[in-house]
Amino acid sequence: MADNGVINPWTVSGEIDYNKLIERFGTKPIDWKLLDRFKKYTGGLHFHLRRGVFYSHRDLDVVLDEFEKGNRFVIYTGRGPSGPVHLGHLVPWIFTRYLQQTFDAKLIFQFTDDEKLMLNPELTEEEVDHWTFENALDLMALGFEQEKVEFIVNRRHSEKVYRVALKVARRTTVSTVKAIFGFDGDTSPAFMFFPAMQAAPCFIESEREGRPVPCLIPAGIDQDPFWRMTRDTATKLGYPKPAQIHCRLLPGLSEGGKMSSSVPGLAIYTTDGPDIVEEKINKVNTQGRGPETCSLYQYYYFLFEESDEALTRIAEGCGARACALCKAQLIERVNNVLENHRVRREGKRSTVTDLLNL
Amino acid sequence: MADNGVINPWTVSGEIDYNKLIERFGTKPIDWKLLDRFKKYTGGLHFHLRRGVFYSHRDLDVVLDEFEKGNRFVIYTGRGPSGPVHLGHLVPWIFTRYLQQTFDAKLIFQFTDDEKLMLNPELTEEEVDHWTFENALDLMALGFEQEKVEFIVNRRHSEKVYRVALKVARRTTVSTVKAIFGFDGDTSPAFMFFPAMQAAPCFIESEREGRPVPCLIPAGIDQDPFWRMTRDTATKLGYPKPAQIHCRLLPGLSEGGKMSSSVPGLAIYTTDGPDIVEEKINKVNTQGRGPETCSLYQYYYFLFEESDEALTRIAEGCGARACALCKAQLIERVNNVLENHRVRREGKRSTVTDLLNL
Repeated sequence: MADNGVINPWTVSGEIDYNKLIERFGTKPIDWKLLDRFKKYTGGLHFHLRRGVFYSHRDLDVVLDEFEKGNRFVIYTGRGPSGPVHLGHLVPWIFTRYLQQTFDAKLIFQFTDDEKLMLNPELTEEEVDHWTFENALDLMALGFEQEKVEFIVNRRHSEKVYRVALKVARRTTVSTVKAIFGFDGDTSPAFMFFPAMQAAPCFIESEREGRPVPCLIPAGIDQDPFWRMTRDTATKLGYPKPAQIHCRLLPGLSEGGKMSSSVPGLAIYTTDGPDIVEEKINKVNTQGRGPETCSLYQYYYFLFEESDEALTRIAEGCGARACALCKAQLIERVNNVLENHRVRREGKRSTVTDLLNL
Repeated sequence: MADNGVINPWTVSGEIDYNKLIERFGTKPIDWKLLDRFKKYTGGLHFHLRRGVFYSHRDLDVVLDEFEKGNRFVIYTGRGPSGPVHLGHLVPWIFTRYLQQTFDAKLIFQFTDDEKLMLNPELTEEEVDHWTFENALDLMALGFEQEKVEFIVNRRHSEKVYRVALKVARRTTVSTVKAIFGFDGDTSPAFMFFPAMQAAPCFIESEREGRPVPCLIPAGIDQDPFWRMTRDTATKLGYPKPAQIHCRLLPGLSEGGKMSSSVPGLAIYTTDGPDIVEEKINKVNTQGRGPETCSLYQYYYFLFEESDEALTRIAEGCGARACALCKAQLIERVNNVLENHRVRREGKRSTVTDLLNL
C-alpha cells in the first residue's frame, strides 16, 4: 500500500501505510516482548493486540514498568462531540475498557466541545452539548465502571482543565504549535491554545496527587501530534511523559468497493436501525477483492469476529464463497451488537447525567 | 509634547501625547455635552472628569442613553496581579468607585493571573495567587460595595469565563489578533487566546440575563487594543459593543526630574511606609520645572488635591515657592492617605476571601 494518505488529527484520507507512520511519527511497534508482558497480566491477549489493531506505542514499556512497581497509571482518551458515534469510534473505546479492567485503572475522558466549536463556525453550542450527552451514552454503554471514570467537558469543567492547560501553554510557543499543527492566519486564536487544553488531562492526576502519576493514552494514531507537543512540555513541568498506545483506523464502508481509510467514509452509526445497516452493507461493492482490500473483512477483523480461527476461515473463504453470504452474516452480527448496545445505552442516562454534572 | 512614546497594553514608555492617541486609536474626546450629562446625575463633576484625567471614550453617550431608558450598565475593569499596587493603579479604581456609586452599577473585576503567567516565565503560580489577594485588598479598601462586586480570577473562575471567551475566539482569527497585538513566534499560544479571555467579561451579564446588558470599561488608554477586538466580535455575537472611558496614566516619579510616562517609573506603593514615601519624593529633582513637566505636580493633579482652586495655587506658586515646601506638603498628604488606606485594607481580608471564593 502506497503511503499516499493524509493523516493528522483533523484529516484522514487516502490509503494509509501504518508501518510508515511509525517511522514518520517516530513511535515504536508493539513487539513480542510487550505482547508477552500483556499476556502475563491477562492470561491471554485482547484481539486488538493479537491482530495489530493496536500496533504502535510510545513508552508503553515505561508505564508497565511503573505498574509492576506499584505505581498505577491513569488512562486518558476523549472525543470531539460534533456528531453521532460510528463503529470506528468504538474500536479504541472497546480497547480502553479492556485496559481499565485489566489494570484496574481510572479513566479520564475529555470531551473537546471547545475544539469542535472552533473548527466549525456553523456548529451551535446546543449541538455540541447534545452530542456530548449522546456520545457519552455510547461510551458508557461499553461497560466502563462509573466509579473509575471522570468526564472533562472542556466548556463545562474549565476549572479543572484551564489552569493546567496554562501550565502547558506557558512552556511552548506559537512557532512550536504552528510547526506541529500547521495553523494559518484564518485559524481561530483559540485553536492555538487548544493543544494545551487537550494536553492538560495528562497531568491532572499528577497535579492532584502531588506526585508523578503515569498516564497512558489509547487513541487513533491520527491524534499523535498532540502527544508529541505534550511530551515535550511534560519534561519541562517535571511530570512523566504521557505514554501512548496507537490503533489503526477502521476504514469506512465504501459503496464503490474501494477501501478508503477516510473516517467515517460510509459509516455505520450506533443508532442505525436494522434496515439501514442492511442497506449500507449491501451497497458495498465487494466483487473480486481479497480480504486485504475488502472493507467488509475489516469489519470482522476490527470488531465482529474475535475468534482468530473463524476470522481465518472468513479470509480463506474470500472469493470462494459468495459475498452475499458474507454480507448477510455481517449484517446479522452488526445488528445484534447494535441492538444490545442500544439497550445498554438507554440504561446509562442517569450515569451520564451524573458524570457530566448536569 | 512630541508623540514619541510607546503605548500598548504591555509597554508604556517615553512621552505620550494623549490628544494624538485619540486620533491614533480612533476614540472620542469627552466633550462638554458629555460632561453636562454627568453633572445632571451627580450635581457636580468628579475631579478626574473636570481635569481630563478621564478624557477619552467610546460609546459613553450610548451607555448614558441606555441608562436614561432604564437599561443599567455593568462596569468592567481589572488588574494583572504580578506585583504590588502603586498610586498609578489607584487612579482608574477611584474613578470606578465613583461610577459604581453614581450609577448604582455592578462591578465585574477581572484578575488576569493567566496573562501574567504567560508574560513572565519566571513568575510562579504562588506569586500570582499572592498578588491577586493583595491587590484585591487595595481595590476593596477604596470603598466598593461588596454586594455589587464580582471577582473573576481567570485561573480560579475559568468556568465563568472560558465558555464566553470561546464565543469571542470563534469569531476572530489569528491574523486579527496578530494585527492588533503584534505577537511573534516566541509568544505562548495561550497569549493568542488571552484577548478573548479579557473580552469575555464584557458579555457575561448579557449571557446571564439573556438580554443585551450594556458594559462600560473605565481603564487606562493603554488597554484600548483589547476593546477594539472586543467591539468587533460584540457585533458578531449580537451583544452591545462595550463602551470605554479612558484615563491618562499617572507619570512615574523620576529621580532625575524628567517626567516620564513610564509606569511605574519610580512608583509609590500602597504599602510604602512614611520613611520610604519621604525618601522617594525628596529624591525627585524638581528644580526649574514648571507644573507641566513636574511629576510632583502631577501627583497633586491626579490624586492629592481635589480642590481646583488649591491646585491652581500650587501651579501658580510653582517656581515662586520652594520645591521643598511642595515636597513636604505632598509627603504629608501621601502618608495620610496611605495610612488610612492601609487601615481600610486590613479590614477587607474577609471580604476579599469571600469575593475570591477562597
